[in-house]
Amino acid sequence: MNYKLMLRMMGRTLQVEALCLLLPLVVCLLYHEDPRPFVFTLLPVALTGFLLSRIRSQSTFFSREGFVIVGLIWMVLSLFGALPFWFSSCFGSFTDCLFEIVSGFTTSGATILSEIESLPRGILFWRSFSSWIGGMGVLLFTLAFLPKVGARNHILVQAEVPGPIATKLVPKTVQSSQILYLIYFALTFVEIAAFLLAGMPLYDAVVTTFASVCTGGFAVMNSSFAAYNTACQIIAIVFMILGSLNFALFFLAVTGRARQALHSDELKFFLMAVAAASLLVFLNILPLYDSFGRALLDAVFQVASIISTSGFCTTDYNLWPPFAQTILVLLMFVGGCSGSTAGSIKCGRILLLLRCSLRSLLRLSHPRAVKVVKLDGKAVDEKTLNTVFSFAILFFLLLGVGCLVVSLDGVSLTTAFTASLGCLSNVGPGLDAVGPVSSFGRLSCLSKLVLSLYMLIGRLELFPILLLFHPATWEHS
Amino acid sequence: MNYKLMLRMMGRTLQVEALCLLLPLVVCLLYHEDPRPFVFTLLPVALTGFLLSRIRSQSTFFSREGFVIVGLIWMVLSLFGALPFWFSSCFGSFTDCLFEIVSGFTTSGATILSEIESLPRGILFWRSFSSWIGGMGVLLFTLAFLPKVGARNHILVQAEVPGPIATKLVPKTVQSSQILYLIYFALTFVEIAAFLLAGMPLYDAVVTTFASVCTGGFAVMNSSFAAYNTACQIIAIVFMILGSLNFALFFLAVTGRARQALHSDELKFFLMAVAAASLLVFLNILPLYDSFGRALLDAVFQVASIISTSGFCTTDYNLWPPFAQTILVLLMFVGGCSGSTAGSIKCGRILLLLRCSLRSLLRLSHPRAVKVVKLDGKAVDEKTLNTVFSFAILFFLLLGVGCLVVSLDGVSLTTAFTASLGCLSNVGPGLDAVGPVSSFGRLSCLSKLVLSLYMLIGRLELFPILLLFHPATWEHS
Repeated sequence: MNYKLMLRMMGRTLQVEALCLLLPLVVCLLYHEDPRPFVFTLLPVALTGFLLSRIRSQSTFFSREGFVIVGLIWMVLSLFGALPFWFSSCFGSFTDCLFEIVSGFTTSGATILSEIESLPRGILFWRSFSSWIGGMGVLLFTLAFLPKVGARNHILVQAEVPGPIATKLVPKTVQSSQILYLIYFALTFVEIAAFLLAGMPLYDAVVTTFASVCTGGFAVMNSSFAAYNTACQIIAIVFMILGSLNFALFFLAVTGRARQALHSDELKFFLMAVAAASLLVFLNILPLYDSFGRALLDAVFQVASIISTSGFCTTDYNLWPPFAQTILVLLMFVGGCSGSTAGSIKCGRILLLLRCSLRSLLRLSHPRAVKVVKLDGKAVDEKTLNTVFSFAILFFLLLGVGCLVVSLDGVSLTTAFTASLGCLSNVGPGLDAVGPVSSFGRLSCLSKLVLSLYMLIGRLELFPILLLFHPATWEHS
Repeated sequence: MNYKLMLRMMGRTLQVEALCLLLPLVVCLLYHEDPRPFVFTLLPVALTGFLLSRIRSQSTFFSREGFVIVGLIWMVLSLFGALPFWFSSCFGSFTDCLFEIVSGFTTSGATILSEIESLPRGILFWRSFSSWIGGMGVLLFTLAFLPKVGARNHILVQAEVPGPIATKLVPKTVQSSQILYLIYFALTFVEIAAFLLAGMPLYDAVVTTFASVCTGGFAVMNSSFAAYNTACQIIAIVFMILGSLNFALFFLAVTGRARQALHSDELKFFLMAVAAASLLVFLNILPLYDSFGRALLDAVFQVASIISTSGFCTTDYNLWPPFAQTILVLLMFVGGCSGSTAGSIKCGRILLLLRCSLRSLLRLSHPRAVKVVKLDGKAVDEKTLNTVFSFAILFFLLLGVGCLVVSLDGVSLTTAFTASLGCLSNVGPGLDAVGPVSSFGRLSCLSKLVLSLYMLIGRLELFPILLLFHPATWEHS
């Protein structure tokens, strides 16, 4: 292990975090709020960052270090990022602060707050801004990591990242990441502008955009998106869907290859899932509504919010019929496309799982027809399929263990299951006691810590954080 | 497709069913009950069986026909087997009769009856006897089919069944099946004797043994095993555990190779799961009990009942704390050992899934260490692993779809989820409205039909029934 390089990279990242903390500080000052939470945080973050970044080290490192550093960076960022919440005294315990900032950085949107509107604007700004930063981090991470865990980004990433994470690749990764960041910035500005045009106040427009373009889900109003008009809700639907698409598709579209972008199997599957789920939910909830249009909007909004793993709401779907709720729970397993800021298993993997299972079925009746599994017309190798299957099994296994931990709090099985699933899939809210108008605040300290870890595990595609807990990762070699 | 041979085999099986129906008829006459339900059923079953068995056909058939015939036989047996229930007028609809007999033949033990004790003894005998027959069918099916779907029975079956299901193998399969049947009969007689010694009435002892040695779960008392004394409950625990073991282990033990039998990875995993789950449940429910011993017995009984996919109960675990309930739900996914009469994913597959997922994890940090996945010290080939993964994914997929269908009835999510899981895993009862002291009776006709199908799908290791629904199976070739 090249520990020195790891520490230096940690230092660099903390320096970036210090820079990011300046923005909420400015917001504090603009609204004449107490700036001390941010000032007190900036000092240790900047100082630690400065000291660590001066450590000298060799510049080569391999796969294993790559995974370890990614996991550790996300953890350290969260520990320091929780400090403004802690200094603001708006939160009950440091565990709560940690849960909230992890929820931000992982773009989950699960909250321990039941009363949001009374919080200082600077604090709420940092809360949503953290998920915007997290979304950016995910894009870079995705670029470097996804090809290794079988959720290949067949259009852009595969061409750019030929092998393991080693320093020689960095120039190419940097190029790709610049393109992705440009798209991310563009989406952010367009969404802010759209919200402003639709009549949302400036502060709300900025902060809500931060939390939605990254498919995060932190709202600044207690009633989430129910507080805004229909136009704002439609804009949110559009940007939640856009945030769930493979960012390489935008790149193709911008460079005049829109037709190529549309040929993605994963995109078709995602759009079909959104359409089918919206229709089923709409038909199921229609009897509860006076207005046809309102039912349709709520159905589409909620489906887009869950499948994009955002977690905003326009209504309390805890009150919906069980069929609609079951569809939402199933969507929590699906998630957006690979190469997006959405979490969960993701459509690309779901497609591979389905196709590979179908192949196993047909192999039994037609033993001689050995077929390869394809995605976008290209054969997917067996090792990748194996990794995708392992991903799904680990996802289900973690889900079960999480459910067990939360059930110790004496909550309903639905609460325990959807709390675990909501955090692991980075959707955020679940059903029942962790539903859209409730919060995770009443859960025990143990549950909050485990669920925080789950948000990190889910966000980083399971493997990096799990590796941190495996002895073999720390063996001398 | 060799349709003629399929019809002839169907005929033979119906003739066996007719013979089986004689036994409950005798019970009817012994207890001076109305024999007409069985007389009316015997005629069409025997006649159809006789006519079909006279069809002449070529004697060769292949894999595909094998799967189709297995699925169809189980369906036709159920259709005819439901007739005594229908003629008895004790059931509300033919769907209810079908659900109940499918639950029997698949050794699930899910019931639509809320009042059991008032039913004629002949009818209850047929209900439990059907699950005993089903257990026997499963053993034969397992022998021929399991090696193809990755739940290899490394000790006996692998040696006996070298390839696809073709007539040339039948002599060997017959030999093995005779051994299995002998073990099954021996277990049955020993359990009946044990129950009698423990003070259970003869009728109850016979009928309860039929439902427990096959890990079925149909009780003849409304309160299930709570109606019997502690000794009977302990006997039931022992035989539910024995019924969940690979029957090849008994064969090894009887032929003086007990040490070899104990070296099975799957056996160790199963016993550890039972011990760990019992301990956790016991600690969790202890505060609810006055008696230490009673809490321990209830915990062990319930764990053994669920992991063996029986579904008996000694207490209403719907009233247990959520943690204990979550453990039971997780056990529903585990099931017994391969080569047993238990259902669900089964310990052998779970072990392979865990080991293969761990390998994927370690491959990332140690890319050069390409390891094979082993079971009982032998390498498992990648194609088998792929099939095991596909099995698990299809299981989860079916579970989700089933949950969606049942949720249309407006029941709670816990009800919908555990109803779907209970049937697919052949455990039977679930939680909430389909809990141990409730019944499936209040579900809609659609739910009952889908859940009946799920019991069949789960019982036949998913693939055979799913193949029936795939167009490629019926293509001319």
